[in-house]
Amino acid sequence: MPARELVVLGTASAVPTRTRNHNGHLLLWDGAGLLLDPGEGTQRQLALAGASASSVSAIAITHAHGDHALGLPGLLQRMALDGVTRPVPLLFPAAAEEYVAHLLGAAAHAAVLAAPHPVPGDGPVLALGGAVLEAVALDHRVPCCGYRLVEPDGRRMLPEALAARGIAGPDVGRLQREGSLATPGGVVALEDVSAPRRGQRFALVQDTRWCEGALRLAEDADLLLCEATFADDDAALAAPYGHLTARQAGRLAATAGAGRLVLTHFSARYGDLEPLLAQAREEHDDVVVARDLARIPLPARRGA
Amino acid sequence: MPARELVVLGTASAVPTRTRNHNGHLLLWDGAGLLLDPGEGTQRQLALAGASASSVSAIAITHAHGDHALGLPGLLQRMALDGVTRPVPLLFPAAAEEYVAHLLGAAAHAAVLAAPHPVPGDGPVLALGGAVLEAVALDHRVPCCGYRLVEPDGRRMLPEALAARGIAGPDVGRLQREGSLATPGGVVALEDVSAPRRGQRFALVQDTRWCEGALRLAEDADLLLCEATFADDDAALAAPYGHLTARQAGRLAATAGAGRLVLTHFSARYGDLEPLLAQAREEHDDVVVARDLARIPLPARRGA
Repeated sequence: MPARELVVLGTASAVPTRTRNHNGHLLLWDGAGLLLDPGEGTQRQLALAGASASSVSAIAITHAHGDHALGLPGLLQRMALDGVTRPVPLLFPAAAEEYVAHLLGAAAHAAVLAAPHPVPGDGPVLALGGAVLEAVALDHRVPCCGYRLVEPDGRRMLPEALAARGIAGPDVGRLQREGSLATPGGVVALEDVSAPRRGQRFALVQDTRWCEGALRLAEDADLLLCEATFADDDAALAAPYGHLTARQAGRLAATAGAGRLVLTHFSARYGDLEPLLAQAREEHDDVVVARDLARIPLPARRGA
Repeated sequence: MPARELVVLGTASAVPTRTRNHNGHLLLWDGAGLLLDPGEGTQRQLALAGASASSVSAIAITHAHGDHALGLPGLLQRMALDGVTRPVPLLFPAAAEEYVAHLLGAAAHAAVLAAPHPVPGDGPVLALGGAVLEAVALDHRVPCCGYRLVEPDGRRMLPEALAARGIAGPDVGRLQREGSLATPGGVVALEDVSAPRRGQRFALVQDTRWCEGALRLAEDADLLLCEATFADDDAALAAPYGHLTARQAGRLAATAGAGRLVLTHFSARYGDLEPLLAQAREEHDDVVVARDLARIPLPARRGA
């Protein structure tokens, strides 16, 4: 299977720290590269993570706050330096259009590498890496949307069943395309030699208060990347600032039936993230903390 | 004497490396903080260098290229977070006005912290830290100006001469202000009890080909911060790209009678900077290489 993994570029919220750059994540998915929220410094973080700017095939911005977007001009300039000539889709909430225009103005000549794609509301926005990218509105202090990448359900061929029926070579593809195949032993249906294969799902939830949109995004996600700005001690700050606690992120993952939860977007007040991890784990069993420059593979496919 | 030192925030040119962030330098000068060319990531570099965004009292941009300016929105936002409420002067070549407007648009609410001050041509632009900041046009691929901070010449009081004439307390200030003082022993002139003190000078030369403006800026500078994009091996690239070699930077310092030369703005192709240092030292005797997060004090005052 081609690599599907999340490259962590930055995990800070408004204020970066010694160990945490401004937010940014690159989702590698079957040859596609989805850059989520290029915060300031994203181009250098890409290099530090061993990823290339030219691997970016789409950019998605959740909202018009600097820590989620100020790296855009530099990213585009770096793509130009690296020889990219074909524009990549640039998604952002429609309300952020004027802000994005300023970012593109700051990118100067490299602005042509972004094909602006304002997201008007909930729904599919882009086909990417054999999957569909969808946007869903969240509840932050400014218009904000999260994204999820949904691979259609498919079927997994069963080598032993194929062999038992003497099906091999081009006939396999024909059977997959046409749904059945005439063989010397009779007509074989696709269902006879394959099993359902559930499509994988990735979801990004930030920045937001607890809301219906977050639940929709997180639903059945195999990998859920979710903001966890605050710890329990500062839970009273979360809603006023339009954020989640780590515990809420855990509860979101559990409620929505998500698989692995990756916490990110931490307040600079926390040097040690272990308490946030522990709080999320009290709500959901599969939780990891995103660390700058780490690579987090998508978990193995779950059952049908 | 109050601290006068250069805080090195970044020393890369267009492409940052593992060890070199995009360009940026903070000149601390008697309580003033002059931020020169805030490249992307400047706000985090400030924190890593142990300097605060709120210590910035003026910002000077040499030209409208991303590696010299894309950190401006984040810097202003960080100043806002740190409680700065009074706008600071923002200097830039007048031709960069539209570009700077986009940067300020990207800074959103924090844009009010910059008081734009387009530089129309050569000359003094600002009083800062008891000195005068001057701009001089350079010769790059786009309109570009360097800056120098010039402290007026003054006089240094001689404690022994004062004591010999019985002058102490408020009389010292009176003598300094009025130029002479009546004492029981007769009229004492300021010149009798003081020696000339040469004002210090700092100069920034980047980005530029060898040109008259660079020589004017560097003239008699105590500390000359100068771009050294290329080594001898790539000297043929310097003029076409509008840059200097390290050797040219050395020659500039020597020709202009500068004191300490600080090399910066290195091409990403050089991991090891020792060859560039050696080449500059063949032209000028006092040369150091700027390293990210280093602090370089202004050399002791030179003689009158």
